[in-house]
Amino acid sequence: MPRVTEDHLAARRRQILDGARRCFAEYGYEKATVRRLEDTIGLSRGAIFHHFRDKDTLFFELAREDAERMAEVAAREGLIQVMRDLLAAPDQFDWLVTRLEIARKLRNDPAFQQGWAERAAELSAATTERLRRQKQAGRLRDDVPGAVLQTYLDLVLDGLVARMASGEDTESLRAVLDLVEDSVRHRGGVQ
Amino acid sequence: MPRVTEDHLAARRRQILDGARRCFAEYGYEKATVRRLEDTIGLSRGAIFHHFRDKDTLFFELAREDAERMAEVAAREGLIQVMRDLLAAPDQFDWLVTRLEIARKLRNDPAFQQGWAERAAELSAATTERLRRQKQAGRLRDDVPGAVLQTYLDLVLDGLVARMASGEDTESLRAVLDLVEDSVRHRGGVQ
Repeated sequence: MPRVTEDHLAARRRQILDGARRCFAEYGYEKATVRRLEDTIGLSRGAIFHHFRDKDTLFFELAREDAERMAEVAAREGLIQVMRDLLAAPDQFDWLVTRLEIARKLRNDPAFQQGWAERAAELSAATTERLRRQKQAGRLRDDVPGAVLQTYLDLVLDGLVARMASGEDTESLRAVLDLVEDSVRHRGGVQ
Repeated sequence: MPRVTEDHLAARRRQILDGARRCFAEYGYEKATVRRLEDTIGLSRGAIFHHFRDKDTLFFELAREDAERMAEVAAREGLIQVMRDLLAAPDQFDWLVTRLEIARKLRNDPAFQQGWAERAAELSAATTERLRRQKQAGRLRDDVPGAVLQTYLDLVLDGLVARMASGEDTESLRAVLDLVEDSVRHRGGVQ
């Protein structure tokens, strides 16, 4: 493909993804209708769905971008740092709430659940790898299986988003993350 | 009021609440339209809203009933036992997901947030009281303020519902609750 077309294609995909993210953030998953996606993106449905097959595909691509960015932080500094970053960027928040809104769909729509699980796998792999290294370095408690620690951290991430939504203040949530960090740490010597 | 009328009133309210709970559980908060509430409850909108002012009032009354039941368990056995009970009753689950679905509304609608907070206060008070007694009895860690422990347990409750929705298996979540229980306990002597 000639370079100019390739650049144009990338810019167009970017425009669609950025607009779609704003639309989901503003209206939520269910109410982000095709009409509203057209308005926020500034393109016709024909143009949008030429690049992304349907609304779910768009949504999954945004989730994949998130997972990729979070996985980079998780691999280097752990999932708790990912959560501290969330607390420090409340403008990201309205988009994050869509994670909770799809709970019913995840439960009742196996194809959607499958698509979502695939996008979450990258972040999950990064967390597993980081936990493995921390355990090797003796920084992680060793009386609880790694898989349980991972489920625990995933649960805390979802709970964090829900509590932010309930209007819990950031300071309390920071203190909770300190407690969470402490609860996965190796307790050797230090109480 | 004569007894028979009072009984009739109570039965009618019960019919409405039970039907509304099924309706919210099946369709989710947003999609539980007035038409669907009529169908599930088996009464006209006139009859329903004679007893409960609007959809939000109905929803809050269901949340209040939950909070009351959970507060009884929380006062006696703690919030972690409330969560173990949730894991043991997955049939309650579809209704519980509405807790997550209202996150955006909680954030954007101050009147709704206020109504929700009032209904959550009873459970919150029961948990606070139980934590206070546990602390007095020396069973709770004393290096972290009680308010932080409470926020932590609230966060875990929301996270638990979200992970159940993502299809996390019950066995892993039980193990996570053991870890959570351990992380709020006093560490004196025992590692």
